[in-house]
Amino acid sequence: MSDAYRRIVLASRPDGAVTPDNFRLETQAVPKPEEGEVLVRNHFLSLDPYMRGRMNDAKSYANPQPIGETMIGATVGVVIESRNPKFRQGDTVVGMYGWSEYGCSNGAGLMKVDTAHVPESAYLGPVGMPGMTAWYGLNRIIEPKAGETVVVSAASGAVGSVVGQLAKQAGCRAVGIAGGPDKCAYVTDELGFDACVDYKAAKDRKQLHQLVKDATPDGVDGYFENVGGDVMNTVLLRLNPFARVAVCGLISGYNDMGAMSPIENPAMFLVARFKMQGFIVADHLELWPEGLKELGTRVATGKLKYRESIAEGLAAAPEAFMGLLKGKNFGKQLVKLA
Amino acid sequence: MSDAYRRIVLASRPDGAVTPDNFRLETQAVPKPEEGEVLVRNHFLSLDPYMRGRMNDAKSYANPQPIGETMIGATVGVVIESRNPKFRQGDTVVGMYGWSEYGCSNGAGLMKVDTAHVPESAYLGPVGMPGMTAWYGLNRIIEPKAGETVVVSAASGAVGSVVGQLAKQAGCRAVGIAGGPDKCAYVTDELGFDACVDYKAAKDRKQLHQLVKDATPDGVDGYFENVGGDVMNTVLLRLNPFARVAVCGLISGYNDMGAMSPIENPAMFLVARFKMQGFIVADHLELWPEGLKELGTRVATGKLKYRESIAEGLAAAPEAFMGLLKGKNFGKQLVKLA
Repeated sequence: MSDAYRRIVLASRPDGAVTPDNFRLETQAVPKPEEGEVLVRNHFLSLDPYMRGRMNDAKSYANPQPIGETMIGATVGVVIESRNPKFRQGDTVVGMYGWSEYGCSNGAGLMKVDTAHVPESAYLGPVGMPGMTAWYGLNRIIEPKAGETVVVSAASGAVGSVVGQLAKQAGCRAVGIAGGPDKCAYVTDELGFDACVDYKAAKDRKQLHQLVKDATPDGVDGYFENVGGDVMNTVLLRLNPFARVAVCGLISGYNDMGAMSPIENPAMFLVARFKMQGFIVADHLELWPEGLKELGTRVATGKLKYRESIAEGLAAAPEAFMGLLKGKNFGKQLVKLA
Repeated sequence: MSDAYRRIVLASRPDGAVTPDNFRLETQAVPKPEEGEVLVRNHFLSLDPYMRGRMNDAKSYANPQPIGETMIGATVGVVIESRNPKFRQGDTVVGMYGWSEYGCSNGAGLMKVDTAHVPESAYLGPVGMPGMTAWYGLNRIIEPKAGETVVVSAASGAVGSVVGQLAKQAGCRAVGIAGGPDKCAYVTDELGFDACVDYKAAKDRKQLHQLVKDATPDGVDGYFENVGGDVMNTVLLRLNPFARVAVCGLISGYNDMGAMSPIENPAMFLVARFKMQGFIVADHLELWPEGLKELGTRVATGKLKYRESIAEGLAAAPEAFMGLLKGKNFGKQLVKLA
C-alpha cells in the first residue's frame, strides 16, 4: 500500500460544455483511519449524467458540488483497514467516495455487497443506482401492463438497458431509442428489445417521427425519458390515452440548461390525458432493498444483461465523463481505479 | 307550446379565432316524441371552453363537432311530454341537448335532478360538469394535504372557483389567478381564497413571477391548470418537490393550437420531481355520483358559492361563447333559453 493516492476535484464550474480544466488531479497522503472509521481502496468509479448538474452553481434537488472538493461519485472497492465493527478487511463495499482512489469514512452509507454471484462492478450498474433508477421509474411510475408498448431513450445505457429488459420481461413491447447502428443492434440482438430507433439516422424531425411511428405501431403507453429535446417531443406525440412518462434525465440539455428544449405540445396532456412525472431514485431509499434484491437475482441468473465502458485509471475520468455527456460511451461508463 | 323552436348549428370551422359566421341559427318544428322518447324544453345552456376544441377538424379525445349539426352542449330543462316510463312531465333534467331550445331523445344520458335545495342552473355549474372537473382534478390528481398551497388559474370561473373553495376547505392555502381587480376581489372576498394574483396587472413575465411569488411564500404543492401559456410557465417555477399539476385546460392556446405556448422548462420535472397529468372528467363517470352528491350538499348548505354570467336567449350564445374564450365572462357562462 502506497502512502499517497490521487483524487480529482472540481477546479471551476463549466460555462456551457464541460472542459478538462474544470477538473484538477491532486495527490494526497492516504489517511490513517481513526476509531470507528474504515479505509477503502476503490476499484471502480461510476460516471453518471447527474454529475453534470452538480457542477453548476444552481438550485436543484441537490446542493452544488463545492469547488476544490473531490468530485461526487459512487464507488465500489475493498476495505483495506477497519476500525469499525461493521466492516472487516477484505469486505467489498459500495459507497460514495467520489473521484478518488481511496475513501475513508465512519461507514455511514457504505454497503457491503456479495461478489459470489454478481461482479463488483455490477453494483455500480444494473444492481446499483442505475438499475434502481430503471426499476423505480418503470415499476412505480410507468407501471407497465402486459401487451403495452414501453419506449426508453438512451436505450443502450446503464439505465435504459435495464428499463427495456424489465419491460420485456413484464410482457410489454420494448422499444429503444439509441444513437448509431451498433448501439441499436446491441439493444435488439443482445438485450432482446423488440425494436430500436437510431435517432442519428433521421435527417430531420419528420423522419424521426416516421421511424418512431414505425417502431410503435400501437402507440406508446409508457415512456422512460433520459434525453429530452427532439427525441422527447417526438415520442410524446405517439402517446396513447392514459400513458405514463417517467422523467429520469434530460441529458441533451445538461450542458446548457438555459437553452434546454421545451415541451412543445402541452395540448397532448389533454388529448392523451397522460401523466408525466420526474423522479430521483435517491428520494426512495426505502425501496432499494426490494429492488436491488430483484436486480441482483436477475443479473446472477443471466436474465439481465449489461455492458460496460471502462476507462483505465483515475486520470482518464474527465475525458470519459465528457464523452458520456455526448453519448460516446456504450453501456455503463466506469473508471477502473485498481 | 309553439310548434317551432330554434337551434344553432356549426356552419363552418374557425380559422383561428371563432367568428359569428361559424354559427347558424335555424328554426325547426318541435318534434313529437315517439314511444320511449321524452321531449324537453331547455331552460339553460352551458357554454364551456371544451367546445372550442370540438369545432376543429382535428383528432383529440373526442370526435369533431359535425358541420350542420346542433352545437354540442349541456342543458337543463323540464320534461314537456314523456312516452318513457323513467320520466314524467314536469321532471327537471340535465342532458346534452346542445345549443337548442328543445331536446327530444330516448332518455339515454338524461339525469333527473332535485331542485328543492339546489337551483336548476347549478347543475350546469358547481353541481355539474364544471364542479366534477374541479372535484376530480383536485381530489384525484392533486390530492391536497392540509397546510399545502394550491394554486388555480381562471380562479373566478366555473371550475376554478370550485377548486379553490374545496382546497380551502381541505385546509390548504388557496391562491387564485384571475384577470382584473374585480375578479380577484371576488375570489378573495366572496369565495374566501387566501390570495389572488391579477395576471393582467403584470407588465411582463418578471413582474408576473414576482406577484405569484408574493402570493405563494411557501411555494406551490398543487396547481390546477386551466389556461396554459405565461401563467403556467410562471407557476411551474414555483413548484415544491413532489408537487402535483392537474391539467384541465389550456384556454390561452385554444384559438391557435399550432401556436400554443410550450412548457419552457422541462428541467423542473427533475428539480421538483413533480407530476403533471392531463384529464377529462368524462373518463371518470363512475365517480360522478360520489362527487355530485358532495358538491350538491355543499351548494345546498351554502358552503360552495358560485357566480353566473347569463346571456339572454339562444341567439346570444355565439357572442357569449366568443367572450368566454377571451375571459370576458365572470363566473359560469350560461344562456337562458326559457
